[in-house]
Amino acid sequence: MISRLLTTFLVAACIACSSAAYADLLVEKKTFSSKNFSTVSGETIAEVNVGWEAYGKLNENRDNVILITHFFSGNSHAAGKYTPDDPQPGYWDAIIGPGKAIDTNKYYVISSDTLVNAFPNLPHVVTTGPASINPETGKPYGLDFPVVTIRDFVNVQHALLQSLGIKKLHAVVGASMGSLQAIEWAAAYPDMVERMVSVIGAGAMDAWTITALEHWARPIRLDPNWNGGDYYSGPAPLVGVTNSLVMITQQAMHPVAFNAMSPAQEVLPKSALESVLNGLPATDFWFGGAAQRAPLADANHILYLVRANQLFVAGHDKDLATGLAQVKAKTLFLPAKNDLLLQPYLAKQAVDVLEEQGKQPKYAEIDGTFGHLDGVYNIQSKAEELAEFINN
Amino acid sequence: MISRLLTTFLVAACIACSSAAYADLLVEKKTFSSKNFSTVSGETIAEVNVGWEAYGKLNENRDNVILITHFFSGNSHAAGKYTPDDPQPGYWDAIIGPGKAIDTNKYYVISSDTLVNAFPNLPHVVTTGPASINPETGKPYGLDFPVVTIRDFVNVQHALLQSLGIKKLHAVVGASMGSLQAIEWAAAYPDMVERMVSVIGAGAMDAWTITALEHWARPIRLDPNWNGGDYYSGPAPLVGVTNSLVMITQQAMHPVAFNAMSPAQEVLPKSALESVLNGLPATDFWFGGAAQRAPLADANHILYLVRANQLFVAGHDKDLATGLAQVKAKTLFLPAKNDLLLQPYLAKQAVDVLEEQGKQPKYAEIDGTFGHLDGVYNIQSKAEELAEFINN
Repeated sequence: MISRLLTTFLVAACIACSSAAYADLLVEKKTFSSKNFSTVSGETIAEVNVGWEAYGKLNENRDNVILITHFFSGNSHAAGKYTPDDPQPGYWDAIIGPGKAIDTNKYYVISSDTLVNAFPNLPHVVTTGPASINPETGKPYGLDFPVVTIRDFVNVQHALLQSLGIKKLHAVVGASMGSLQAIEWAAAYPDMVERMVSVIGAGAMDAWTITALEHWARPIRLDPNWNGGDYYSGPAPLVGVTNSLVMITQQAMHPVAFNAMSPAQEVLPKSALESVLNGLPATDFWFGGAAQRAPLADANHILYLVRANQLFVAGHDKDLATGLAQVKAKTLFLPAKNDLLLQPYLAKQAVDVLEEQGKQPKYAEIDGTFGHLDGVYNIQSKAEELAEFINN
Repeated sequence: MISRLLTTFLVAACIACSSAAYADLLVEKKTFSSKNFSTVSGETIAEVNVGWEAYGKLNENRDNVILITHFFSGNSHAAGKYTPDDPQPGYWDAIIGPGKAIDTNKYYVISSDTLVNAFPNLPHVVTTGPASINPETGKPYGLDFPVVTIRDFVNVQHALLQSLGIKKLHAVVGASMGSLQAIEWAAAYPDMVERMVSVIGAGAMDAWTITALEHWARPIRLDPNWNGGDYYSGPAPLVGVTNSLVMITQQAMHPVAFNAMSPAQEVLPKSALESVLNGLPATDFWFGGAAQRAPLADANHILYLVRANQLFVAGHDKDLATGLAQVKAKTLFLPAKNDLLLQPYLAKQAVDVLEEQGKQPKYAEIDGTFGHLDGVYNIQSKAEELAEFINN
């Protein structure tokens, strides 16, 4: 959910982000390619390309690997900088690096892009989705791209790890949509995953969340420029994307932080009294910021990401309990106390099921005023618990 | 926020809604008309018509009046039935009637429609707004209708009371947008209002709520049929309205009740894997229900209602404290504990300001699993506090 706009505002508040702390963590984006990828929906994608980056060193046994999976609006840039003068580091730089909670002096930390990344036009994002060229037609897939699921994201990462000769994950750690991938990893490949950390996550979607996600898709489908998903040779549906991005940003926040970041409104602003179409300070601020980011996103990719999330039940099996019955990993759940998007009850549901199965999931809530985004901005408040879980 | 769909589901659960309880409360919708109404925005509306209904009897001194002001998706049908075989009574029938918390054996309870009602096509709603005929052109106003504010709603009600020779309000009571009107009454006409009850309300909008409201407007503006507000001679923007109504309904609820009402989803439903455009059980249910109600709403009216709410600060004066400084009424605030739309912090803000001003506002939270809608569906849980406040 993190946005560039937000990051720009908030990087100053990031305790562990002093330039000294990450001066030595310079990272490089790499691309993993795979041919004839089979999807859960029974289709084949001729070529899949996803970006990935890594921090730390792979040991000789190749068993010191921690996989980081990213959230809806994010990408694989979880830590470090691409160049020393990058304005900001990766989103979880506070907990990934030398001597940090996820210690790159000990672990080889791999962070992977997903299929259908929401922002394929960002320079460092490598992804495959509806905006990619369909080799059969030489044109973007559009809605001919197969529906993909969180399990597909995991399967691409599995193929990436195989290509590196990695057969064990010391841990898989993800926030939000990344937490869905993390728990899916533990359910789909139980013999590979030793530890699973779900930050601001869920074991399965419920009707509330499925419908909330639907609201992120509908403005795009209403935008005339969307044109049934076929807009790659014309203007992109940027108004629909903008509306969607503001909704995503707001739902990922909490009123305290949201209000603190918004401009104040005088009483009865003159232009607002002149027409219902005229903006207000807060709406100009949030919709204006999102409009700037909209060209970096792809409308169809957002629709596909929404669908992947809507279909999520850990294990993609009969039900949540059946899926979680497969899990052998030690598990840690870190929901955010003030999360209004994936509220703590969702993490608790998974914890309850695991406990009923005789497992011993750990659970702690992240404090803060950012809501869902506390899983990104306040993750360092759980650095100790995280380090203890990872190292034991 | 209450919807017909919801009411249909929930009337069975309404403890006080046995047919015996309201058999004797049959009500009639009346119309109040006023010429040359001046708006806060400095415009004149040639003719204003709003509906109203009343329960109980006006006493000789005309000082036993309680005014009920309605919420965003509601109207003046607060109690009773129009005919004995109506499927459901008014929305607050649990607390308004003979012997109930707002006792129609003692009080003359008036409930008034607002300007720009969201559902002008419902048979019992009488309102004036963009869908009304502009006498200057003989055609619907569309966006030529002046921007109106909560103060304008109050001023129309004030004119209605004047026409009835009423100079005092024993109390004004409203839920959600109705609570904005109630507190505005106390700030704008402090010598008229003896008691004010704000249910699931706020003293002023904040950036969070202003932006949340904006999301209700944007789908309408994106719908090509909206046509800049000029759609009265063509197809209405029903897709935009539908998306807006689902958002309003979901934000007015809480996951517990929302999930309980939604159909279950099998894992990986086949059609959902075939296309990202295919519906899911929960989205089909909520969007399907809203699509049925959409023709009863008016798209421009929703835009105008959104704007009226966005501009709200009690008193419409320099700031909230200046507005509330005018209040002489005794006040009672009843937010809903699990409200995700107008969270209890908003009512607390008003309470804090009133306390700083040496007043003694009362405050209690409504429990329940409906979220914002607990202010409608669980209001009877606060019947005792309400009766005590009203009667003392």
